[in-house]
Amino acid sequence: MSRLLIENGTVLTINDRHDIFDSGCVLIEDDRILYVGPRSGLPEQVDADRMDATGKAVMPGLVNCHTHLCMIFGRTLATDVDLLTWLDRQMPVMAAMDDAAMLHAQLLGCVENLKNGNTTVVENLFAARTDTFSPETLAFEAMRQAGLRGMVARAFEARHFDPAFAETPAEQTRRVTALARDWHGADNGRLRLAIGPLLPWAVDESMLRHTRALANDLGLPLHMHVAESQEFNRVIARHYGRPVRNVELLHETGCLGPDVQAVGVSDLSAHEIELLVDSGTSVVLDPQTRLFWGTGFPSLKPFLDAGVTCGLATNGPAANCGQDLFESMKYACATAKTAVGDPSVLPARRALRMATIEGARALGISHQTGSLEVGKRADVITLDLRQPHLTPASNLDACLVFSARGADVRDVIVDGSVRMRDRRLTFIDETALLTRCNDLANACLERVAHRQSDSRPSVSREIS
Amino acid sequence: MSRLLIENGTVLTINDRHDIFDSGCVLIEDDRILYVGPRSGLPEQVDADRMDATGKAVMPGLVNCHTHLCMIFGRTLATDVDLLTWLDRQMPVMAAMDDAAMLHAQLLGCVENLKNGNTTVVENLFAARTDTFSPETLAFEAMRQAGLRGMVARAFEARHFDPAFAETPAEQTRRVTALARDWHGADNGRLRLAIGPLLPWAVDESMLRHTRALANDLGLPLHMHVAESQEFNRVIARHYGRPVRNVELLHETGCLGPDVQAVGVSDLSAHEIELLVDSGTSVVLDPQTRLFWGTGFPSLKPFLDAGVTCGLATNGPAANCGQDLFESMKYACATAKTAVGDPSVLPARRALRMATIEGARALGISHQTGSLEVGKRADVITLDLRQPHLTPASNLDACLVFSARGADVRDVIVDGSVRMRDRRLTFIDETALLTRCNDLANACLERVAHRQSDSRPSVSREIS
Repeated sequence: MSRLLIENGTVLTINDRHDIFDSGCVLIEDDRILYVGPRSGLPEQVDADRMDATGKAVMPGLVNCHTHLCMIFGRTLATDVDLLTWLDRQMPVMAAMDDAAMLHAQLLGCVENLKNGNTTVVENLFAARTDTFSPETLAFEAMRQAGLRGMVARAFEARHFDPAFAETPAEQTRRVTALARDWHGADNGRLRLAIGPLLPWAVDESMLRHTRALANDLGLPLHMHVAESQEFNRVIARHYGRPVRNVELLHETGCLGPDVQAVGVSDLSAHEIELLVDSGTSVVLDPQTRLFWGTGFPSLKPFLDAGVTCGLATNGPAANCGQDLFESMKYACATAKTAVGDPSVLPARRALRMATIEGARALGISHQTGSLEVGKRADVITLDLRQPHLTPASNLDACLVFSARGADVRDVIVDGSVRMRDRRLTFIDETALLTRCNDLANACLERVAHRQSDSRPSVSREIS
Repeated sequence: MSRLLIENGTVLTINDRHDIFDSGCVLIEDDRILYVGPRSGLPEQVDADRMDATGKAVMPGLVNCHTHLCMIFGRTLATDVDLLTWLDRQMPVMAAMDDAAMLHAQLLGCVENLKNGNTTVVENLFAARTDTFSPETLAFEAMRQAGLRGMVARAFEARHFDPAFAETPAEQTRRVTALARDWHGADNGRLRLAIGPLLPWAVDESMLRHTRALANDLGLPLHMHVAESQEFNRVIARHYGRPVRNVELLHETGCLGPDVQAVGVSDLSAHEIELLVDSGTSVVLDPQTRLFWGTGFPSLKPFLDAGVTCGLATNGPAANCGQDLFESMKYACATAKTAVGDPSVLPARRALRMATIEGARALGISHQTGSLEVGKRADVITLDLRQPHLTPASNLDACLVFSARGADVRDVIVDGSVRMRDRRLTFIDETALLTRCNDLANACLERVAHRQSDSRPSVSREIS
């Protein structure tokens, strides 16, 4: 049995009452939270290791509900072109990845998430797969090494502009069944598997139904991109040969429900929002990404008004060029306000809850993480408030949303295990990792450069 | 004579050719840059102190063209209300400031700017003034102590909802003349004074002409908020009793020109953009702030198409809750793209130049700062590239704009003097400053709380 007492900090519980303890403490025993509150609620003598949090906020680790760490080697590549042209530049880099590249890309992404205070990460993974190359296994191995709470949301594509990325429903079933057996619920329940189509036009109705049945059989959640732009609904209508909208399609095929995360939702009708509410489907919002391609951004107001559970996400290290969920909170408020011209529409506190407990609820793991409450897993971060850019801070919620950044996080604990202490990772040589990742990324980029560019598959030629 | 050689870094010159030297160096002698380029361009033996920049970017300090450090004690206060209601919450805090509060607010703001890599800061200062309370003097004293390159843009208000903030044209002349004599060009030319109306409806035409004449007499630039929203033009039409638009008004009264910075420009007609171009007026854009109140954001495209010089700004520590100009660059790209639905409209490189040399040009100080070139003043920062969130970075411009943050800055040199080394300030006890600022801010907030709220002047009641 191990015990850790984090003391003298400003403890944000993110519980239902949003309790904040000005000089509070958190007592952790093994993987669990044993006590949260004022120091006076504990006996004077506590047999535990100590972590002094004087001048720091102590809060639940953030929940990053959607990213593509598999694309991290494409960071800063083609930042000023449209989505499809950007994909044409990114996909060859992904296609050039081998085992070492994928493992290290995932590990680098996990490390970047931890350094930003994200203790839970959903990796929406698509890649060129074979029976000897399982990128999901590499992602899980990286998550295991990093020790974070991770979900690999495996993206299924029966149809892809690069055939290497496509697989049959039978292959999906076989591979997902093996992954679920080996990884779903592993590492004290920290690792989980989800499935879903990468894009609604990468499959057909029978494959959607098949994917839902597979998820039900194995007890897996569904995770997928939904209605990210008006173009989504146009391409769906063409692909399915009828004027069906994205959420309607998911409703027809049984792919809505409380175990579903719909990511990037932007172009929804009122009827589709009703379908989300009635089915208990959660949405995941990635406010920076919409702006990256200039395609506009969704109004959060309809979701907030309708009571839809909203998680937040950084999205890609290539699309957003970062994994800072503090930045996402600020962008969420900025874009939600601007979409409807109403500065009160998304208060800081709600944004903070979306990045923690509400995100955990969207992923179906709010019984484990997302708040500091007795009995929950100890996913805890500290953040240094004694800095010029956080001074003064009369409103702590607003300070964390509008002024703080991932770089202000000092300590990160996942499942009771200290993964970062005073910004130093406890489990890996960070410098060596960065050197290795730079080498592997350069090798991928060089392999791409040596190919003839006009022989590459092109998503922009394929879709437009 | 003192010499400093910064070596082994990736040197971004931001010169006209945008030269980048992969393993370059910068040699500084006293306040000037003596050499920029590859190490091989210097003799093997150089008699100088050394700063090793291995793994770092070496670049010009950023130019923050507009902020209100005088409002820093209002950080995180009322982050989810409209502009006028927000001002009603902020103004009493400002009105409660005494000498110690104003000096420390300015000093805290200077420190925050330096820690984010901003070596040049424009403080647009408005306050309750008397003949014994000169906030401008306190701002200059703080800038002197911080050693940054600073412009105090003194905001004139003949009419204000709180009479304590108003002054007569005669008072403006007397006080500005004294300030110009004491401070304009002081400290090796680092400190400068600018003037202008705080808001176009805080003055009348005669006062605009008077302010322009005063600026000409004393050789001062003009700096002012212009057409920040559609409401600006509505209030102007009512105040001036005719349908004149903001830039037209400035044109009529002689308040455009190459020595003018128009801040926050958002609601401009095509004719007004022509007036800006013809007069050589610069604009200053504060991309986060527009989103803070949800009032929409300007399209940068017309300015870029017309060839207007565009500086970037963080704006207020209260409105934006921060001073991170790296964040402003990312928001600038995001909003410029989204405003016109075109991801190519503001490439990363241009955003980076707006935050450096173009901002310096907007302020009329590009002969001194904004790029690393021989003969210029040595305003230099280093930024640590060996971090997970900056790995890999195949495109350095995009890396700095989309992935980097002010917290990545390690060293800051202004006018040849090292102000921060490895994130530690060289000129002040940072912890003591933060403690003192928290105490002073709390005292201001307490004084405000003790007043009757309905007896306070109200800008929202005044204007609406």
